[in-house]
Amino acid sequence: MKLLGLDPGLRFTGWGVIEAIDNRLRHLGDGVIATRDDLPVAERLRTLHDGLQAVLDCYRPNEAAVEETYVAKNPGSALKLGQARGVVLLVPALAGVPVFEYGAMAVKKSVVGSGHADKAQVELMVRRLLPGAGIGRADAADALAVAICHAHCRTTRARTAARLVAGDAIGRAGLR
Amino acid sequence: MKLLGLDPGLRFTGWGVIEAIDNRLRHLGDGVIATRDDLPVAERLRTLHDGLQAVLDCYRPNEAAVEETYVAKNPGSALKLGQARGVVLLVPALAGVPVFEYGAMAVKKSVVGSGHADKAQVELMVRRLLPGAGIGRADAADALAVAICHAHCRTTRARTAARLVAGDAIGRAGLR
Repeated sequence: MKLLGLDPGLRFTGWGVIEAIDNRLRHLGDGVIATRDDLPVAERLRTLHDGLQAVLDCYRPNEAAVEETYVAKNPGSALKLGQARGVVLLVPALAGVPVFEYGAMAVKKSVVGSGHADKAQVELMVRRLLPGAGIGRADAADALAVAICHAHCRTTRARTAARLVAGDAIGRAGLR
Repeated sequence: MKLLGLDPGLRFTGWGVIEAIDNRLRHLGDGVIATRDDLPVAERLRTLHDGLQAVLDCYRPNEAAVEETYVAKNPGSALKLGQARGVVLLVPALAGVPVFEYGAMAVKKSVVGSGHADKAQVELMVRRLLPGAGIGRADAADALAVAICHAHCRTTRARTAARLVAGDAIGRAGLR
């Protein structure tokens, strides 16, 4: 199961792909899609689209996870960030890749164990959880953190589902 | 010259296509792309993408114009609106259609003559400027208003450019 993590931004969008087999995680790739801030927004969004499309074509992930963006206090900044986020959510959806969203605290809690961890702690843990990975920029490490969070949540959901199915089977068995 | 006007929103995105030949404007079509608010955002953005793509395929506009969104005071709303706006800017750009942006005041001034006109006045003038057009929802009228604004601004720019070229020719002629 290949999972794509995404950390959206108009200037830099981080991406990271991991492979999750049971409890083991393996780093497949990461990077940053940068857009030139002297270009019109529509052109920057096209650059972002093309970069994301290239990542999807290259890695063919099964699922994608996006961090719920920190909403700036300034509505103007939130609008700008939203435009990038719209493209980041759209591109996997167009490719038929299911997209999941996680809050920043959920990501930190999943990776570091505390929802109040700082960026340096998150990055340190990402490097520890994906040994041997030559992770580039901080935005790419953040994207890998979302992918790791999704891998953990998928496993938990699968276990819960298994428990529920088992519980149901026992319940029905008891009724016989 | 076919011009596509767009009024972005996550719930409703208005669109309107007009044809501009010199000073004459003709209504070609308008409508609204609606997304279901019980679906995940990525799915809603895909609906919006597909709807816009269908409009582009049907009318093949030469240029697109988007109203600079009113930024809500609430950063959360601005982020949501930004996501829709990102897709609205992206889709024409991907099709190679140049995208222009106009502030709400510029649109009102261009259509009604006053930057402080209300929505009803804008809609009334849109219907007057495009006689015979059976314009649907208010969002579609707003989209047509942006297209009209772009048509006016294009003409002004063309005239200014013509004057500049003429002025340059006279200037050079004077130097001989």
